[in-house]
Amino acid sequence: MTRWAPGAAERLQEAALELFATHGFEQTTATDIAQSVGLTERTFYRHFSDKREVLFHNQHLFTQAFLAGVEAAPPDASPIEIVACALRSATSFFPDERRHHSRTRQSVIDQNPALQERERHKLATLAEAVAGALRARGVDEPAATLAAESGVTVFKIAFVQWLREDEQRSLAALAEDMLRELLALTRDQA
Amino acid sequence: MTRWAPGAAERLQEAALELFATHGFEQTTATDIAQSVGLTERTFYRHFSDKREVLFHNQHLFTQAFLAGVEAAPPDASPIEIVACALRSATSFFPDERRHHSRTRQSVIDQNPALQERERHKLATLAEAVAGALRARGVDEPAATLAAESGVTVFKIAFVQWLREDEQRSLAALAEDMLRELLALTRDQA
Repeated sequence: MTRWAPGAAERLQEAALELFATHGFEQTTATDIAQSVGLTERTFYRHFSDKREVLFHNQHLFTQAFLAGVEAAPPDASPIEIVACALRSATSFFPDERRHHSRTRQSVIDQNPALQERERHKLATLAEAVAGALRARGVDEPAATLAAESGVTVFKIAFVQWLREDEQRSLAALAEDMLRELLALTRDQA
Repeated sequence: MTRWAPGAAERLQEAALELFATHGFEQTTATDIAQSVGLTERTFYRHFSDKREVLFHNQHLFTQAFLAGVEAAPPDASPIEIVACALRSATSFFPDERRHHSRTRQSVIDQNPALQERERHKLATLAEAVAGALRARGVDEPAATLAAESGVTVFKIAFVQWLREDEQRSLAALAEDMLRELLALTRDQA
């Protein structure tokens, strides 16, 4: 299975995003989405549990990329080095050719409190999964949770920056910068 | 105005918590809460917009305490020193005599996804407010957002630990420890 296979699910996702962005999330029905690409509502519900899920369908792949990075880090890596590795893996999920798509998606989410809630929930779940993966590598608490939360924070801030209209840098470069900023911030303290 | 004035609002809050913990959040109505302390439903709605709000009524005082700490930091304090100051101020809002109450409140929240969502939303709003207060003190981005998010993360993790049944340390001491752990984690890295 390739990541962006142009099957029914992906056609429905692209169409949904287009309709959400043009007509608004609330105003678009599952039937509207299905019909716009010549499919039935039934096909829609074979792929997605609800309308919100269209926007979060790839989230588990993103989580997998994040966790794969945790696992790929060298055995002697420190918690922060593991997080850096996880960020490299996670950001590779968003090459520059996805930037336009991601911008559109985010503008839909930013206009709807229920979607923002789903997004916050997914990020909280991601942080918990990353902390679990760090513990599985032998990192103790609270270091595992602190490192995981810091990694997700860095990703979140880098992602917002990546989506800015005037931003040219890659998400990978931005995440690396943000992590470096975080380390600079906390260095030489207390 | 004293912080825990035993007025109608506080009596309603205590009664609500007791009923939520005993009968469940969903099963308890605003009328149940009001009647249990000899007040009317109308009085309930004079103090709280809805049943969820009973659990989050003091949140603005907590946010104020966090922000007051940002403002109280010395003019030459680094972003992390400002966050440390904010944590000292915010944790003073939860003296040990509030621990039992906070445990009960958290157990109610942990059992209800809608309440967990409200809590995540309040913490996200807090982080934004703290970042804004840091910018107002002249801290640049992304340092302001990174420091604010780190401060809220430290608070969150310390708070979970404070509520553990076997935990004896104060929230202030735990937050100080967690911040120190975060600094140790990021020190001597890349």
